Amino acid sequence: MLDKFHDECGVVAIYGHPEASKLAYLSLYAQQHRGQESAGIVSSNGKKIHHHKAMGQVAEVFTESVLRSLRGSLAIGHTRYSTAGDTALLNAQPLTVGTSKGLVSIAHNGNLTNARQLRKRLEETGSIFQTTSDTEVILHLIARSEKKEFQPALEESLLQVEGAYSLVILHGDKIYGVRDPHGFRPLVIGMMPVPGQAAQEPKKAMAYAFASETCAFDLIGAHYWGEVQPGEIVRVDAEGLHASRFAPPGPSSFCVFEHVYFSRPDSIIFGRSVHQSRDNLGRRLAREAPADADLVVPVPDSGVAAAIGYAAESGLPFKFGLIRNHYIGRTFIEPEQNIRDFGVKLKLNPVRSILEGQRVVLVDDSIVRGTTSRKLIRIIRSAGAREVHVRISCPPTVAPCFYGVDTPTQKELIASSHTIDEIRKYIGADSLAYLSLEGLRGAVGDTQGEFCTACYTGHYPTKLINLQMETANRR
Amino acid sequence: MLDKFHDECGVVAIYGHPEASKLAYLSLYAQQHRGQESAGIVSSNGKKIHHHKAMGQVAEVFTESVLRSLRGSLAIGHTRYSTAGDTALLNAQPLTVGTSKGLVSIAHNGNLTNARQLRKRLEETGSIFQTTSDTEVILHLIARSEKKEFQPALEESLLQVEGAYSLVILHGDKIYGVRDPHGFRPLVIGMMPVPGQAAQEPKKAMAYAFASETCAFDLIGAHYWGEVQPGEIVRVDAEGLHASRFAPPGPSSFCVFEHVYFSRPDSIIFGRSVHQSRDNLGRRLAREAPADADLVVPVPDSGVAAAIGYAAESGLPFKFGLIRNHYIGRTFIEPEQNIRDFGVKLKLNPVRSILEGQRVVLVDDSIVRGTTSRKLIRIIRSAGAREVHVRISCPPTVAPCFYGVDTPTQKELIASSHTIDEIRKYIGADSLAYLSLEGLRGAVGDTQGEFCTACYTGHYPTKLINLQMETANRR
Amino acid sequence: MLDKFHDECGVVAIYGHPEASKLAYLSLYAQQHRGQESAGIVSSNGKKIHHHKAMGQVAEVFTESVLRSLRGSLAIGHTRYSTAGDTALLNAQPLTVGTSKGLVSIAHNGNLTNARQLRKRLEETGSIFQTTSDTEVILHLIARSEKKEFQPALEESLLQVEGAYSLVILHGDKIYGVRDPHGFRPLVIGMMPVPGQAAQEPKKAMAYAFASETCAFDLIGAHYWGEVQPGEIVRVDAEGLHASRFAPPGPSSFCVFEHVYFSRPDSIIFGRSVHQSRDNLGRRLAREAPADADLVVPVPDSGVAAAIGYAAESGLPFKFGLIRNHYIGRTFIEPEQNIRDFGVKLKLNPVRSILEGQRVVLVDDSIVRGTTSRKLIRIIRSAGAREVHVRISCPPTVAPCFYGVDTPTQKELIASSHTIDEIRKYIGADSLAYLSLEGLRGAVGDTQGEFCTACYTGHYPTKLINLQMETANRR
Amino acid sequence: MLDKFHDECGVVAIYGHPEASKLAYLSLYAQQHRGQESAGIVSSNGKKIHHHKAMGQVAEVFTESVLRSLRGSLAIGHTRYSTAGDTALLNAQPLTVGTSKGLVSIAHNGNLTNARQLRKRLEETGSIFQTTSDTEVILHLIARSEKKEFQPALEESLLQVEGAYSLVILHGDKIYGVRDPHGFRPLVIGMMPVPGQAAQEPKKAMAYAFASETCAFDLIGAHYWGEVQPGEIVRVDAEGLHASRFAPPGPSSFCVFEHVYFSRPDSIIFGRSVHQSRDNLGRRLAREAPADADLVVPVPDSGVAAAIGYAAESGLPFKFGLIRNHYIGRTFIEPEQNIRDFGVKLKLNPVRSILEGQRVVLVDDSIVRGTTSRKLIRIIRSAGAREVHVRISCPPTVAPCFYGVDTPTQKELIASSHTIDEIRKYIGADSLAYLSLEGLRGAVGDTQGEFCTACYTGHYPTKLINLQMETANRR
Repeated sequence: MLDKFHDECGVVAIYGHPEASKLAYLSLYAQQHRGQESAGIVSSNGKKIHHHKAMGQVAEVFTESVLRSLRGSLAIGHTRYSTAGDTALLNAQPLTVGTSKGLVSIAHNGNLTNARQLRKRLEETGSIFQTTSDTEVILHLIARSEKKEFQPALEESLLQVEGAYSLVILHGDKIYGVRDPHGFRPLVIGMMPVPGQAAQEPKKAMAYAFASETCAFDLIGAHYWGEVQPGEIVRVDAEGLHASRFAPPGPSSFCVFEHVYFSRPDSIIFGRSVHQSRDNLGRRLAREAPADADLVVPVPDSGVAAAIGYAAESGLPFKFGLIRNHYIGRTFIEPEQNIRDFGVKLKLNPVRSILEGQRVVLVDDSIVRGTTSRKLIRIIRSAGAREVHVRISCPPTVAPCFYGVDTPTQKELIASSHTIDEIRKYIGADSLAYLSLEGLRGAVGDTQGEFCTACYTGHYPTKLINLQMETANRR
Repeated sequence: MLDKFHDECGVVAIYGHPEASKLAYLSLYAQQHRGQESAGIVSSNGKKIHHHKAMGQVAEVFTESVLRSLRGSLAIGHTRYSTAGDTALLNAQPLTVGTSKGLVSIAHNGNLTNARQLRKRLEETGSIFQTTSDTEVILHLIARSEKKEFQPALEESLLQVEGAYSLVILHGDKIYGVRDPHGFRPLVIGMMPVPGQAAQEPKKAMAYAFASETCAFDLIGAHYWGEVQPGEIVRVDAEGLHASRFAPPGPSSFCVFEHVYFSRPDSIIFGRSVHQSRDNLGRRLAREAPADADLVVPVPDSGVAAAIGYAAESGLPFKFGLIRNHYIGRTFIEPEQNIRDFGVKLKLNPVRSILEGQRVVLVDDSIVRGTTSRKLIRIIRSAGAREVHVRISCPPTVAPCFYGVDTPTQKELIASSHTIDEIRKYIGADSLAYLSLEGLRGAVGDTQGEFCTACYTGHYPTKLINLQMETANRR
Repeated sequence: MLDKFHDECGVVAIYGHPEASKLAYLSLYAQQHRGQESAGIVSSNGKKIHHHKAMGQVAEVFTESVLRSLRGSLAIGHTRYSTAGDTALLNAQPLTVGTSKGLVSIAHNGNLTNARQLRKRLEETGSIFQTTSDTEVILHLIARSEKKEFQPALEESLLQVEGAYSLVILHGDKIYGVRDPHGFRPLVIGMMPVPGQAAQEPKKAMAYAFASETCAFDLIGAHYWGEVQPGEIVRVDAEGLHASRFAPPGPSSFCVFEHVYFSRPDSIIFGRSVHQSRDNLGRRLAREAPADADLVVPVPDSGVAAAIGYAAESGLPFKFGLIRNHYIGRTFIEPEQNIRDFGVKLKLNPVRSILEGQRVVLVDDSIVRGTTSRKLIRIIRSAGAREVHVRISCPPTVAPCFYGVDTPTQKELIASSHTIDEIRKYIGADSLAYLSLEGLRGAVGDTQGEFCTACYTGHYPTKLINLQMETANRR
Repeated sequence: MLDKFHDECGVVAIYGHPEASKLAYLSLYAQQHRGQESAGIVSSNGKKIHHHKAMGQVAEVFTESVLRSLRGSLAIGHTRYSTAGDTALLNAQPLTVGTSKGLVSIAHNGNLTNARQLRKRLEETGSIFQTTSDTEVILHLIARSEKKEFQPALEESLLQVEGAYSLVILHGDKIYGVRDPHGFRPLVIGMMPVPGQAAQEPKKAMAYAFASETCAFDLIGAHYWGEVQPGEIVRVDAEGLHASRFAPPGPSSFCVFEHVYFSRPDSIIFGRSVHQSRDNLGRRLAREAPADADLVVPVPDSGVAAAIGYAAESGLPFKFGLIRNHYIGRTFIEPEQNIRDFGVKLKLNPVRSILEGQRVVLVDDSIVRGTTSRKLIRIIRSAGAREVHVRISCPPTVAPCFYGVDTPTQKELIASSHTIDEIRKYIGADSLAYLSLEGLRGAVGDTQGEFCTACYTGHYPTKLINLQMETANRR
């Protein structure tokens, strides 16, 4: 039951709005790309809580009548990627439990690196676990704390956990936003006026929101105000916002992959525009690794932004030579008579009138196992392309992530055990180039080593992980 | 979240059969009358466990493919009545948790009377609760126990809880059947040969089963072997059955309502035939409260068995003067133009050709609030009955149950605050009579006060309850 | 596509009530026993029609919002038994089609015996068929008629079809009830006051209803007024009820099986109480075929009414020695290790404390293939019964029905090819007796040969059928 | 019931492949953009037919087990856009009916312009209609034909219908592809080898496919072979392909909107690449209507291809300044407190870091009512854009389509009653320009007036339509 600790997720919190659960729902919807497997919201009027969570996408999980039942002006929400099997619903968040400090609801984006050790210790002294989620550990630590008040107990607990966590917590009539001392995952703060309140109750004129990304704010009409800083707890209550540190300032480790792939291009996270980063990645790639070719074609949708940058910088025309099928369902039925490269063909179809006879620069953001790239290049060639030059908008991925991105094991990452030329041969490209680490850092404006690039370097910013990796390698 | 501790349920366990989960499923189905709201099964091969639970009836919850996935020769199951709201699925059983003693799965029929106090104490020392179920308390006590081995920890825990509990527990490669020292709820033991095993592995030739009622055994071909005795743990493992006491012998308190209404007539529980008890109830009622009438009509289905006894004893003809509609769904749409007594009419339709001009003895097993009886008598009269004489096959229900039957509060019980003649007037009967307490005891063969009759007397066999009642009354 | 013409069904129509579709829905629900596979309602305000039909039981098919959308004060409805496969929904009724005489909606209980011949003729002259239902033939005949007005076209069409049909038809602002010249199937007429109309618009003070059985009227508060006579069309319009003959009076052929088994005991059809008929059947059976036994046990639910009559007449005690499981779903999963008589056991469980050591009279209403009876008797003996004497409340079923009851083919009917003693041996009874044909006629008050008893005699009241039977036998 | 005759759809047919229904399913999936409301497949082994259709997208409608049940080496399929209400499923295609010429299954893309007149005539002479679809008329005409053989009856029928129809028909062991004399809608022919057949049965070595677009062939590995010509029936049977004319050659009227918007860019229809047409549209637009601006932004996804052409031709940078949300469900719940432009915001979010301070060329393929464009421009400006210059890649849409594209009525088309400058003011753009009709014709290579441009000119290529328009205008 304890094998699966790694997930990417989106979180949201709303404070002080009469339609808190509806705004939470829209914010989750805007962050649907961060997790499509389950969704949940807990709402409260400061006393009684209501909750609903289920497997599925946000628009499926919440109906009009469900949202109506989620009453109150406080709400937190969560959308989650992954975890197969029947433990999935149990692990759906927010988690709500009864403790000596009252009911606590929590939603977590990230991954704790010492959850197993903590869990073992807690079980040995009589705690029982109902989920396989690392998040539950935090709740047990709060429940065990001898501090009488909630926030001191929370702070005490956070000092015991390691790894990546951006948390939103609902307790009583307060909401808390928390970010780990490295700041691995984003957590942004927004504000919005409550209609008709300014005149009546000036203290209630403003509502507050937390989200993983600012795209959530755009939809609900909230204004970006700043970030929860690494090592900070931001509490919202009747008196407004209160920020305080629970850990001393230290070096930051913002996840660079949020800018490369994960976040939406219309979001601002870690204080910069995601779109700008991606355009830079493509432009630097064009300068570092030009190609003697006729046109630039992106792998949709992951490679589009970088491909546009590459085309603009290189002067080559940009073309949608691969058409993505938007109607794809979860499972698809294949004929028994094998159709070559069926899985890729279902998603992408080459446009012969664009590709025929051409020398193509194919731009994407990563190569993981190499199998999909291999099929894709075969499909492009079968549509008549003369040459295929693959350009990747970041360095080779050589090491798994332990901070909340669900990556394959090191063994499965083709770049962990193959040279670039070996990869080129395997995928069947005429040439292959990756962006350099310096290029990546430059593109995201990382002048002081504030970003975690462990998946490209194997250098993890926290100690414990190295032990885990060794373990992982021994398996 | 902590308001609802009272439920009636059915449990089952299978040990040592290659199709354990299928037999558990059939046993739950045979006990479906004990709870229709949710159903669950946990199976195991002694190492890895599989589980599935969901809202709904047994036949809906388990599909062929779900049952196939519930592998292993050990299984426990549960079917549950009631608890509305979205905490329902969380509270569905069996519960499975990870503890320092490994994974423990448990299914519970009954209700603990000191669960709130224990929960409060556990929360104060750092435990967190994910359900509102009293059953979770037992798991926390086991997890907290300093005994290293499971069974001693279980015994230590049981000595701390009070109230009604018939439990089946799956831990490692063993199954446990447990019954509280009063024996409030039934728990029977059965055995069945495993096909083709006798010759190959004689030690594995016999499989074991636990169930709330023997009707579960009839369907799966198991033979009734006896009961788990009050205060006893019966363990089944590779060596066979091992019974041991965890509490000293004391006075028993078998729930008399199981014989009056709850169990199936084809079951044997507390060592006697349920059908025989019900027939006796009707015959004694006829002797205690005869009526000058033309025919005996039962309220289907609850009054049928006693009505047959009443008719046989009185010599009056037995007739189905009320037809029950078997197709009724959960929610039903009523015209805006009110149809009088709509709710009762949907379920029961009077047969004019039986009732017209007749003096009718109407037999049922209880009157709760009186509102349904009132409507029913109005319907019978409107079909032409000349007189309606109501006969109830047990004494007036004056007090709520705290041992696992979901009853209304004392206030809602009409007999707790009205005389028999006031009730008669309210429901509109020509005469009304209840069976006496002595009659009830005689009918179930209770010569030594072995049955709990608290709902008829207000005398609860455990201390704590009186406090709860006072609290209840103060509210 | 043309193989399945035989179904039993229930129909309903409401005229002149503001909640017509809700009353139709409740009437269908009360007649759910006549068909559980699909249900449908068409409603109208006299101009625009609305309709909804789907697979499933009435309570599943109609939700509050669906009923709200079925506006208007006219409605007809249908509930249908059987027909597997994906043509089922297409065949669900009411059927609605566009013709030169406007939109026509129709619901049909019965079976046309010359539907194939008519269909062939219609197809040869250019008609196309979208269902495999015999009912569609009537619609084509109406569409083809050269009569300009609807009712004359309907009458002309009815003179071309043969067999059994009780129809309700919605056309424009009128509703029609139609019964074939033999009157095989029932069709009753009811009336009910419309709340608040008497004072305002006296002509609209009364609403009208048609139904297959009167139990539909009890639930909606309608009063039984009479029957549509064989060979009659009853039209309801703004002027009230208008009855007219479309065929000359002839001998009637009421389906005796409606009284033996099919209709609800609380209904009045063919002018007599179903319950009274069934009680008579049991009493006559007791006189014709007494048994030296200890008690009378019914096969629930089909044998209950006759068993009560048998017990009353014979003086033997009546006992529910078999308990029926009410929770059975559609499909059930059986263990691979065969459980003997599993299918029957799922539905019925013997009560050992009633049966053990006893000589049992087992009463049912029919033996079809004999296989179920055989298993049931085996189960009763295994519960300890000493002797089993089977008594059937009608004569042996020797011939299939072509008038709307879904029976097995002649070959499959055990009584068509075995003597009573051979059947007794096959099912394993100590004795077996059937009610005589005279006994059956006497029980339903058939002094003038007004009932169809073809399934017991093979003498069909219409000619064509004999040809069909020969064909059937040649297969 | 007769109001809705206008739909766009996709059709497919497979002949001679052992997995015909699976290939039909994949072909429908590739054409999902042509209709998402319902999908259906009829399969056959030349004798027995199987069918399945349901509301929903292809991937939802067909499960593995449904496809397995659709046996046989012949199949036709259909995917359909629109038609609300409960007649939707009845109108789902393929339609299958029984006629004197046997079972006929048909799937139709297009719209008949004289369907009402024909239907009226057929009803007057006794035909009944079960759908509101114009397609059913063709089936009635075939059924009524006095020709004994199917193909002559089909030809006779086609000469009576007018308007747009690309049909695939399954009759017995043959499949027919049919295209109306104007060739409004596409219908392409493909071939593919049947694995392992060439050696065994050379005559069965090749399987055939029909589809609306060639993108269906790419997925199943079929090769584009040509088109069914306007006025042609192409029959496939055991002897192979047989093309024959049923109408004399005349002027063509290919739907230009297929190239502008409807078809997939990776398809070849009317003998030319759709992508190439769209790129031309953008380039010509840039030459006809340049803008003094900083960047080119498409309305995703409809404006992407033309925007890339515009950017390339103008030398301005191409940027995704609007991000499309891919997760949008069917219904979405809006807060009561109005969010401005909520509906558009749910689908599109502006990227402030791209738009801020910029002069933007916004490219799309059409303006229908203008309301969405107005909201979109407001959103772009609120993200900081300095100027918004709207460029539309075809002429103003002034007239509705009667040939199978579901357009608003003329009244609702903003360009039918407003000048370009009035539209510009309404939508709030700084400038607005449309491509000229000559530009459009040039972009799709229409040198001889082979394309229908009625929606841009109001000149319909068939007579009857003008009458319909007048009617439409009078309403």
